[in-house]
Amino acid sequence: MSDVRTRFDLQPDQIPTAWFNIMPDIVKAGMEPLPPLSPQTKEPIGPDDLAPLFPMSLIGQEVSTDEWVDVPGEVIDAYRAWRPSPLSRATRLEQSLQTPAHIYYKYEGGSPAGSHKPNTAVAQAYFNKEAGIRRIATETGAGQWGSAMALACQMFGLECDVYMVKASYDQKPYRRVFMETFGAGVVASPSDKTNSGRAIREAHPDSTGSLGIAISEAVEDAATHEDTNYALGSVLGHVLLHQTVIGLEAQQQMAMAGEQPDVVVGCVGGGSNYAGISYPFMAGKLRGETPDMRFLATEPAACPTLTKGRFAYDYGDTSRLGPIVPMYTLGHDFVPAPVHAGGLRYHGDSPSLSLLVKHGHMDAVAYTQNEIFEAGLLFAKTQGVLPAPEANHAVKGAIDEAIAAREAGEERVILFNLCGHGHFDMQAYDDYLAGSLPDFEFDAADEEAALANLPEVSIPV
Amino acid sequence: MSDVRTRFDLQPDQIPTAWFNIMPDIVKAGMEPLPPLSPQTKEPIGPDDLAPLFPMSLIGQEVSTDEWVDVPGEVIDAYRAWRPSPLSRATRLEQSLQTPAHIYYKYEGGSPAGSHKPNTAVAQAYFNKEAGIRRIATETGAGQWGSAMALACQMFGLECDVYMVKASYDQKPYRRVFMETFGAGVVASPSDKTNSGRAIREAHPDSTGSLGIAISEAVEDAATHEDTNYALGSVLGHVLLHQTVIGLEAQQQMAMAGEQPDVVVGCVGGGSNYAGISYPFMAGKLRGETPDMRFLATEPAACPTLTKGRFAYDYGDTSRLGPIVPMYTLGHDFVPAPVHAGGLRYHGDSPSLSLLVKHGHMDAVAYTQNEIFEAGLLFAKTQGVLPAPEANHAVKGAIDEAIAAREAGEERVILFNLCGHGHFDMQAYDDYLAGSLPDFEFDAADEEAALANLPEVSIPV
Repeated sequence: MSDVRTRFDLQPDQIPTAWFNIMPDIVKAGMEPLPPLSPQTKEPIGPDDLAPLFPMSLIGQEVSTDEWVDVPGEVIDAYRAWRPSPLSRATRLEQSLQTPAHIYYKYEGGSPAGSHKPNTAVAQAYFNKEAGIRRIATETGAGQWGSAMALACQMFGLECDVYMVKASYDQKPYRRVFMETFGAGVVASPSDKTNSGRAIREAHPDSTGSLGIAISEAVEDAATHEDTNYALGSVLGHVLLHQTVIGLEAQQQMAMAGEQPDVVVGCVGGGSNYAGISYPFMAGKLRGETPDMRFLATEPAACPTLTKGRFAYDYGDTSRLGPIVPMYTLGHDFVPAPVHAGGLRYHGDSPSLSLLVKHGHMDAVAYTQNEIFEAGLLFAKTQGVLPAPEANHAVKGAIDEAIAAREAGEERVILFNLCGHGHFDMQAYDDYLAGSLPDFEFDAADEEAALANLPEVSIPV
Repeated sequence: MSDVRTRFDLQPDQIPTAWFNIMPDIVKAGMEPLPPLSPQTKEPIGPDDLAPLFPMSLIGQEVSTDEWVDVPGEVIDAYRAWRPSPLSRATRLEQSLQTPAHIYYKYEGGSPAGSHKPNTAVAQAYFNKEAGIRRIATETGAGQWGSAMALACQMFGLECDVYMVKASYDQKPYRRVFMETFGAGVVASPSDKTNSGRAIREAHPDSTGSLGIAISEAVEDAATHEDTNYALGSVLGHVLLHQTVIGLEAQQQMAMAGEQPDVVVGCVGGGSNYAGISYPFMAGKLRGETPDMRFLATEPAACPTLTKGRFAYDYGDTSRLGPIVPMYTLGHDFVPAPVHAGGLRYHGDSPSLSLLVKHGHMDAVAYTQNEIFEAGLLFAKTQGVLPAPEANHAVKGAIDEAIAAREAGEERVILFNLCGHGHFDMQAYDDYLAGSLPDFEFDAADEEAALANLPEVSIPV
C-alpha cells in the first residue's frame, strides 16, 4: 500500500479567498428559484424584511447573483485555526471492501468544534460584529451548531445565547459544557425566556423540544432585542455559500490526486455540509463540463425529507416566525423519531439543494440507523477515524457506491464529506455495539398530518 | 494579525523516517544510565529477561546505542492517518497575555485517538505482529493509551485486551466504548482474570484500582500467555524513542517559522510526550550547540514525581512484576489523589528523563488542578482548541513563561506540546466552571510511607 498516496494536504496559502455561489449556475441551467415569502402576508419578502434578524451584508449574500463572494481577511485569519482541512484516500477501507473504487474523503472533524459548522459560524460572527451587533441568539439540536457559534462569538468578541433542544440538553450535558467553556449561555428549549417557549410549555408541559421550536425561540429573541441578531447553521443561502470552502479545497486536492470524482456523496440535514463539498463540483455538471458526475445526498430513514417529503412552500420553524421557503419538507409540525444523528432531524431542506434534487441533478437515498452505524464502525476500524452519526450516512453512501463499483468491475472515484467526528456520540456507539439501537421507520400517517398544515400561498411550486 | 504567519504545515514526505535516540548524547554528556534490575534477583537484567513481554526488535531499541532507528515503511503508512501534525503560533493567546513572547504549539490531538499515544502504539503493534504475536495485553488509566493501542491493534490485525483502572472504567464509560469500537476487550482492574487482580480484590474488595495494579495485571497476562505480549504507553526507552517524531517534525516547523525555541515545555506523567517533543532539541543542548535553551517539565501538584520524588531504584508496578528501574519516584505504593489529568498519575518517570532532571538539564514545576484548568480555558477561548487536562499543565507552563517574558520585556520563543484534546474530559471542565474542582495537596506523610517500601538494591544511584 505504501506506493499509493493517501494524503493530499494544501499549503496555508491555498485556503480559498472567495466563496462560490451556485445560484447563477442554477438560473443559467434553467431552474427557477422561487422567492421566500413573508409569514404574515405570504407575499415575497425583500431584504428589509430580514433586517431584524441578519446584518445587511449577510442578507446581500442571501440574494447575491455574483458567482464569487470575497472572504474577508479576518475570516481567513479565523479559518487558519483548522483550514485547509485534509483530504485523504481511504485505502484501508477500499482493501476491506475489495473494491477497485478509489474512495476519497474530506475531513472537517479537525475544526475546534469537531465539525464543518465553524466554516460559516466565524463568517456570521464577523459580519455581525462589523454591523455593530453585540449579541447572537441561536438554537442547537445535537449541539454542533451551538458549539461552533459559541466558539465564533468568542473569537469575535460577541455574546452568545443558545437555545438547546431540551432532549439534547438533558442527554448531552457535555455538549452544553463545551459551549459554556467558550463563554456561551445555554438554556433548554422550550424555555421561559420567550413567548414561543412559554406557549409550548403551557400547551405541552412535558415537551422535550424540537429544532423547529428552538429556532422559533432564537428568532423571537433576536427580533425583540435591538442589539441582538439571529444566526442559523444551515438551510439559508449564505450558510451554504460559506461552506463552499470545503468543496473548493477538495477540488484543489483532487487535482493533486490527479483524479476527478465520479460521484460526490454527503449527508443532508438542512444541506450545508453537502452543499459545501458538492456545489463547486455541481457547477461543472450544470455547465455541461462534467455531465456524467453524479451527486448523492444521504439522509435518515426516520426523517426522509428528500426521498419522501413534498416539494412545497413551508415554514422553516414550528412557530411560523421565519420566512416561508420553497423546499422539500415533511411539514413544519413533523417531529422526527429521536435518531442519534440529531443534526439531520430537520423537517425541511435548503431551497437550492431541493431544486437540484427536484430537477434530477442530485440523487437522494435514506438509510436506517443500524445501517449507518455499521458503516461508520467499518470506517473507524479501517481508517481509524470515528465519524459522527450524521457523517455515518455519508460513509454508508460511499461504501454502497464502492460495492456497486466492485460488482460492476469499475474503478470509480468516490468523494465524500466526513463532516464531523463522533467523540461526543459515544453513547450511540455503545448502544449500537450492545445491539440496542432502534431502527425507526418513517410513519406515513404522521407525514400526512404534518403536510396537511402547509401554508396556503398564491405562488405555485 | 493577518501579517503574522500562524500555521507551519509539513508536506507528507516530511514525516520523519527515523526515530531519534537520545541515549548516545546522554552518555557523551557524562551522565551514566544505570541498568534495569530483575525484580527477583535485583541484579541487572539482559534482553532475554524481557522476552516474555516484548518482541526482540523492541528490546533491541530499548538498549540501542545508535543515534537513529529506522521507522519501518508500514509504520510510516500508519502515521499518514494523522502525521505530519500541525505546529501553530498562538497569536491570539499572545495578544490576550500582552506578551512580546512568541508562543508555538505542536498539536497531537488530531490523531485518531485524540492524543500523541498512537505514535508509539502503531510502532509497537507493528513490531509485535512481525514477531508473530497474536494478542496484546495492556493497561490504561484515563483511557488514552488503551484507545491508542486498541486502534493500533486493529490496524495491524492483533487482538487487544485492556485492563482499565476501575475508577476510570466507571467514570469514563465513553473511553471504554471508544476502545470497544476499535474491537478491543476492556475489563475493569483489579479484575478476576489475573492472580494480581484477584489478590488485590481479596485484600481490598472496594479497590477502585490504580495504574500500578493495572500494569501488574497486563504484565501477568502477557507473561502467562505464549501468544500474548505486553505493551506500555510511556516510561520505557523504546516508547520515548517512537515519540520523537513529534520533536523531529517540530524542528522542521520551527525552521519554517525562522525561530529557535528559548524554552521547550511539556507535561510529564511517564515522560513520553515531553521526551517526544524535547529530546531532538535536547541533543543540541547536550552537544553545546544551544547551551542556553531551557526545558520545562510540568506535572500535577497531586503527583509531583520530579519536584518532590526521590531519585532511586523502584518498581514500575504495584505487584513488583516488572523490572526495577532508576528514576524519580514517589514509591510504587503511592496512590495519587484523583486529579482529572489521569495520564499524569504515575508514581515514577522515565529513567532517561529523570537523569536529565537530576543533572540539571531540565527543570520541573508542579501545578494545582484549578491553576491548570484556568490556563486551559484561556487557551480554549483564545485559540479555539480545548486541551486535555494533562495538556493543560503544558499550557500553564507556556503561559507562565510568556508572562515572565512580558515582565522581563523580552521577545522569548516558547514551544510547547499540546499532546491531546479534552473532548472526553467535559465533566472536568463542567466541574471547573461550577467552581467545584478540588485542589489536592501532596501529602508528605503518604510520601514517606510509600518511599519506605523502595526495593533494597546493591547498585547505588
